[in-house]
Amino acid sequence: MESSLCFPVRLEGQTIYVLDETRLPLEESYLEVKSLEDALEVLGQMKTRAFGQVLLFLYTCALTGEIEGIATAFKKVRPTFDFNSLAGVLKGATQKTPALSAAVASIVQGLDKKKKVRSQRLAEILPYDARILTICNVNGELIYLADALSEMGKTATFFVSETRPYLQGSRLTLWELQRAQLPVQVLCDNQAAVLMQQGLVNCIVTGSDRSTKRGDIINKIGTYALARLAHYFNIPFYVLTQFPLAIDIEDITIEERPPHEVFLWLEGNGPWPDALYPAFDITPAEFISGWIDISGEVACA
Amino acid sequence: MESSLCFPVRLEGQTIYVLDETRLPLEESYLEVKSLEDALEVLGQMKTRAFGQVLLFLYTCALTGEIEGIATAFKKVRPTFDFNSLAGVLKGATQKTPALSAAVASIVQGLDKKKKVRSQRLAEILPYDARILTICNVNGELIYLADALSEMGKTATFFVSETRPYLQGSRLTLWELQRAQLPVQVLCDNQAAVLMQQGLVNCIVTGSDRSTKRGDIINKIGTYALARLAHYFNIPFYVLTQFPLAIDIEDITIEERPPHEVFLWLEGNGPWPDALYPAFDITPAEFISGWIDISGEVACA
Repeated sequence: MESSLCFPVRLEGQTIYVLDETRLPLEESYLEVKSLEDALEVLGQMKTRAFGQVLLFLYTCALTGEIEGIATAFKKVRPTFDFNSLAGVLKGATQKTPALSAAVASIVQGLDKKKKVRSQRLAEILPYDARILTICNVNGELIYLADALSEMGKTATFFVSETRPYLQGSRLTLWELQRAQLPVQVLCDNQAAVLMQQGLVNCIVTGSDRSTKRGDIINKIGTYALARLAHYFNIPFYVLTQFPLAIDIEDITIEERPPHEVFLWLEGNGPWPDALYPAFDITPAEFISGWIDISGEVACA
Repeated sequence: MESSLCFPVRLEGQTIYVLDETRLPLEESYLEVKSLEDALEVLGQMKTRAFGQVLLFLYTCALTGEIEGIATAFKKVRPTFDFNSLAGVLKGATQKTPALSAAVASIVQGLDKKKKVRSQRLAEILPYDARILTICNVNGELIYLADALSEMGKTATFFVSETRPYLQGSRLTLWELQRAQLPVQVLCDNQAAVLMQQGLVNCIVTGSDRSTKRGDIINKIGTYALARLAHYFNIPFYVLTQFPLAIDIEDITIEERPPHEVFLWLEGNGPWPDALYPAFDITPAEFISGWIDISGEVACA
């Protein structure tokens, strides 16, 4: 099965179509991006994120014929994600496939294949009756995971933490799992501890925006609390990691998002009350049971 | 200083005026309750909660001249709160003051005085530079606390967890602390762990809907996770308890609220996706540093 979130950004001719994730689950609509300026705007407004920002970066490079400048510009808008490494991957690919758009296409195809392999590896580790708690969204990969589990005769039930303030869990993950007709329930982030306490979940699976040499991960705010609680309840915590563990924690800038995002639920416009909103948190390696790399490599604690 | 939330429900003549907490912080409006039926409706819709439901119960008794039947009816709508004990308190008061409305008035006055004493006791325990993390809402008592701290030459800064799904933290506590011009920031529930990790808070203060003989408390969902994390970070966790610790945990029914409340942020109407929403959780005594009883008694772990 596939989700619209597997490829939320597509290049057709000279236009990049970006799935407006902020409109989900109400409607599946696409924004048109025709320049670097357009791309930075949808990025800053978090119309797309995670794998979508990888695709947006790659297609913006294909569209403009540039790499370095695009990485610098993207990093200014979303400082936590490693656009420089991604630029390195793209430059590497152009050694073999000089045409930028062809190099991009081969990277995108390769990444999707790798995500399927990664889901396969994770499925091998999970229990036969997998009751999976997750947070935020990993772009269709939970659906690949459910497919892989099903092929092994394993069952999957999903519990999705809503992921305040941007509600990527409720907006995206719940939506894609429901469309794939998988058993899923959503919960408020502050209910996860009770689910664990009551034995309703037996594993936790999250993505990660970045990871370090020693296995710490940076992921959506709330991940750290889940990992800390799972450790206490002896529930294994598995992370899908994006890139080789080649950096230190000090190398990473944790992005702060504007306070008004915390007040999306308020009708009308500001002024918004004072709010704290670091967009990501750091989960130290000691709370992680297993890392499944995009290459399909598995490391267990 | 006083907050509108200190007395969110008032009796004037034959009408009970109920502050519609679901309209805060957008507007301060009052609903008129003239019968038990009206009272049960505003209770079920959570127009008022916590101390408001205590007041609503007492004034509904005064209005209808009945006690037992009112307690049974209230308990059906909000099963976690102990309306039966409250009925006992009211019956006890009528021994001294036979007129039901006079008995109610003296209980209400007494409770407010006790809350001030309780805030005083808690202020004595808190550090000089109190950086207080709280969740949900304790009906103006944080303002009494700030007053008491200030009289002792101590300072108070508040961090308010928004308290999903009903957002009592953002709607009520932030609103009343801002109106009292106290320093306050709101955060998403899943950010609390990072605040603790970074040393930004040095104590946690919450209310409790119920508490047991051994000191376990039942409070708004999310409290348990805060207590568990605070214990890990060695941050003292203080609880304002309502009633003597005279019950066991098995005696308490944890209320489940309807799933659509988790989706308040979605525009339009249902059908709502499947959601989990236990309204309360249980925090075991071992994670609590101190209990401050409504009578002003303090117990420390």
